[in-house]
Amino acid sequence: MLGLMQEHKLLVSSLIEHAASCHPGAEIVSRTVEGPIHRSTYGQVRRRAQRLANALEALGVQRGERVATLAWNGYRHMELYFAVSGMGAVLHTVNPRLFPEQLEYIIGHAEDAVLCFDLGFLPLVESLAPRLSSVRAFVVMTDRAHMPASSLPDLLCYEDLLAAQSDDYAWPDLDEGTAASLCYTSGTTGMPKGVLYSHRSTVLHALGACTVDNLALSRDETALLVVPMFHVNAWSMPYAGAMSGAKLVLPGPALDGASVYQLLRDEGVTLALGVPTVWMMLLQHAASNGLAPSVELALRRVVIGGAAVPHTMIESFERDFGASVVHAWGMTETSPVGTVCNLLAKHRALPLEQRLPAQAKQGRAVFGVSLKLTDDTGRRLPHDGEAAGHLKIRGPWVARAYYREEDAPILDEEGYFDTGDVATIDADGYMQITDRSKDVIKSGGEWISSIALENVAMGHPLVAEAAVIGIAHPKWQERPLLVVITKPGQVLERETVLRYLDGRVAKWWLPDDVVFVAQLPHTATGKLHKARLREQFRDYRFPDG
Amino acid sequence: MLGLMQEHKLLVSSLIEHAASCHPGAEIVSRTVEGPIHRSTYGQVRRRAQRLANALEALGVQRGERVATLAWNGYRHMELYFAVSGMGAVLHTVNPRLFPEQLEYIIGHAEDAVLCFDLGFLPLVESLAPRLSSVRAFVVMTDRAHMPASSLPDLLCYEDLLAAQSDDYAWPDLDEGTAASLCYTSGTTGMPKGVLYSHRSTVLHALGACTVDNLALSRDETALLVVPMFHVNAWSMPYAGAMSGAKLVLPGPALDGASVYQLLRDEGVTLALGVPTVWMMLLQHAASNGLAPSVELALRRVVIGGAAVPHTMIESFERDFGASVVHAWGMTETSPVGTVCNLLAKHRALPLEQRLPAQAKQGRAVFGVSLKLTDDTGRRLPHDGEAAGHLKIRGPWVARAYYREEDAPILDEEGYFDTGDVATIDADGYMQITDRSKDVIKSGGEWISSIALENVAMGHPLVAEAAVIGIAHPKWQERPLLVVITKPGQVLERETVLRYLDGRVAKWWLPDDVVFVAQLPHTATGKLHKARLREQFRDYRFPDG
Repeated sequence: MLGLMQEHKLLVSSLIEHAASCHPGAEIVSRTVEGPIHRSTYGQVRRRAQRLANALEALGVQRGERVATLAWNGYRHMELYFAVSGMGAVLHTVNPRLFPEQLEYIIGHAEDAVLCFDLGFLPLVESLAPRLSSVRAFVVMTDRAHMPASSLPDLLCYEDLLAAQSDDYAWPDLDEGTAASLCYTSGTTGMPKGVLYSHRSTVLHALGACTVDNLALSRDETALLVVPMFHVNAWSMPYAGAMSGAKLVLPGPALDGASVYQLLRDEGVTLALGVPTVWMMLLQHAASNGLAPSVELALRRVVIGGAAVPHTMIESFERDFGASVVHAWGMTETSPVGTVCNLLAKHRALPLEQRLPAQAKQGRAVFGVSLKLTDDTGRRLPHDGEAAGHLKIRGPWVARAYYREEDAPILDEEGYFDTGDVATIDADGYMQITDRSKDVIKSGGEWISSIALENVAMGHPLVAEAAVIGIAHPKWQERPLLVVITKPGQVLERETVLRYLDGRVAKWWLPDDVVFVAQLPHTATGKLHKARLREQFRDYRFPDG
Repeated sequence: MLGLMQEHKLLVSSLIEHAASCHPGAEIVSRTVEGPIHRSTYGQVRRRAQRLANALEALGVQRGERVATLAWNGYRHMELYFAVSGMGAVLHTVNPRLFPEQLEYIIGHAEDAVLCFDLGFLPLVESLAPRLSSVRAFVVMTDRAHMPASSLPDLLCYEDLLAAQSDDYAWPDLDEGTAASLCYTSGTTGMPKGVLYSHRSTVLHALGACTVDNLALSRDETALLVVPMFHVNAWSMPYAGAMSGAKLVLPGPALDGASVYQLLRDEGVTLALGVPTVWMMLLQHAASNGLAPSVELALRRVVIGGAAVPHTMIESFERDFGASVVHAWGMTETSPVGTVCNLLAKHRALPLEQRLPAQAKQGRAVFGVSLKLTDDTGRRLPHDGEAAGHLKIRGPWVARAYYREEDAPILDEEGYFDTGDVATIDADGYMQITDRSKDVIKSGGEWISSIALENVAMGHPLVAEAAVIGIAHPKWQERPLLVVITKPGQVLERETVLRYLDGRVAKWWLPDDVVFVAQLPHTATGKLHKARLREQFRDYRFPDG
């Protein structure tokens, strides 16, 4: 027997319609690529998104076609979020930090029909354009006054497109399973893979982001999105913002400490979201300029994801900014929010140093998401905070296949996606990533966390950067090799490092060797490129091996 | 083109499974009908719900069949919530405060197959049983030691049923549109009507209840459910509790001031939810016993719905309890949450007396819900805080038809349900109910709010209760008649009352007459029964009419 409730589909258009109806005046503040601060509202975003939808239809964009963006965080990008998905096309947010050959591959693989880009990316687009055969229209996200000279013929001006259209546009009533947006993983191995989000997954994920135990976005927040809008839907903030009426602050390309600090102060930001790198620049800016952020700012929470949060960062935000760090974890395949580290009352009762271990964990599974840990054979491991296993995830905003690889299964028999991470989960449900599956060192049937070893090695005052990889070993299968960059002008000995580690890690975790290098390979997004490092050390043998 | 995300259905079973996986130890504390406090956990609720599902299947309960409860708030009722819906049957929560003939009608109309009831309702059930022909099994929600002697043959004992079963039970994978629960309206006119909630509407509504701008239930809260579990799913708290891991406190039948106060104090309640009547008893208890609730209690928020909140109640909770009142509005047909009165920063900056007008409104539409105001012809009215119109509501947890009246349309051409209320909505989206549509007095093409008039009349120190109804008038169509009960031993004159009102309401709102009565008719749930009052005054004519 079926219930007798109304059947309303979960559509991206319902988010901006709710915003325009319930909090039309709530602000979207952008630092523009052109320079000045721009102020818009959800009501304006909705009207301009409707014009944009008319404009894209006039350009011949069909339902299901991909419209790509190559853009920083700003109000026009936000309009594209709602116009493209709302009209039934697919918003493909492209990461401009990728290498040109990756950009070419991704735009070609997605068969993007239209490419909308910020002014600053014109040279990049001009160089790529001859090889972007699917792209029928190139749109510069600016007004007529700022339109640049270009080698590209028929370059379109975003504001001209809007000016030519009416804002009379009725969002189509789509199947809620319809694709809404597309984002490619920036994998360190193999080619990038596309994750195709649906309207349903997007709205459920945004609803989750407004719950207290998740990211708790609300009408009361002014949220600074340092996390890029080309990076997994900016962690849902454009959608959750429209849902809740939170004031959003979009920083454009200026992510240096001074620019971010200025926005935090001038806009009364209460919640800021981003990756550790940007926060490091902010903390350094505040410290080196003798600023008093806890007095000058209204910042209450800093949500940090994308990489593990150092304890010192949690301490600095709390002490100097009067803001709590909320650690979160997810990936492109999970929309992204999988876990959020909101503390329990029992943690909050502890002094900072005693709650740091809990606060530095990746957090608890949000409702909708189910996690499990398994060993190499797929057998479940206990959630005791000790057992480290492959972290697998299931839920309505988790991918079931990659775009144009629909037939390649990526889920196990219980429907879980293997995150590629190794993690523990404690009795309170707090998950902590200990390593990447492919980086963990399998020694005599036990696992050694390369990340844990690197973190300890990095504690040595003369170590600038450290990487640990597994090297084949005849007896133990693999043993750890520590690769170190010493600080400029400093000299370190193999034995000094090993003595430093001894007592700080289990005896059997001690690396079998330490080698010193001048540099380490990194990915386009700044992460240690361990696959390339392993490749470099393919022929390495341990001294006694 | 469809997205490539996992397809997980929104099912009630997913709520208790999430709870058992992520916060199995979070508590459910019940004051039992038998007396003592009982402590359970979400993990235990899930295991016992699985046993119960096995037991109900053993009793022959089929998918779609109705299992009724006649019970106060307690852990066994909570187990029924998850077992019955989880197994694909329909939980029918019956309001034991209804008149016996209403109970007989409702249980017969729902064709309930099983009736589970609290010990105290045995006499009621015994008297009804001969006329409950659909009920195959009567289950007393108690253990063997408390099983009563009864005239009913084959009375079943809840704990015996569970003891006979294994907790090995796999929840079926249902269509998310499947009916999950059934609740009848307690209409003042006509027979009660059944609202049939689906799994999808229930889960979406619960997810909403965990968002910050809605009821903001979270792992951090200890929530006292004074709102009965037979009253529109206890405002979703059993579901949202499982979703969030909030500690729930279930007060059983003891809703007197002393009992409620004791639970608030002993269990560290932070959030309490219920109707004004119960809070009145609590406030009186605290005041008359010289208690210091703001010192003794951890109470932060009191969510009040079901009737308008008097300003004095908001003041008392804030001043004496240190707790904020959150006004909320909804109805059986809306699952129930439609609006919640969370304040904006600009309100909170105001002193109490200046923010009371905002805080006493019913609040803003939560995401998912869309409101409109119309005149008698269906034309939309502005949201300017002035125009009062018929309040209509649309959303995924709003009914589209009543049970067994599937073919009778209850929505307008835009899919909105007419709430039967008259309301205003201001520019910030705050809705305020000014009257019931059938009670509003239509005078010369304008509307006079009977409720507003009653509230002003009730301000007179000698008035104990006041009711205003419209009386046919040859010139103005209708004019207000004020019906008053004076305080015991007091005497009031018609002219005194009219002089009191003069200047406090618009001239043309002044009642054409005042009559004094010894009592006023009320419904089973304690509301003024205006239909009956109008019936009593059917032949009344104004002195000058």
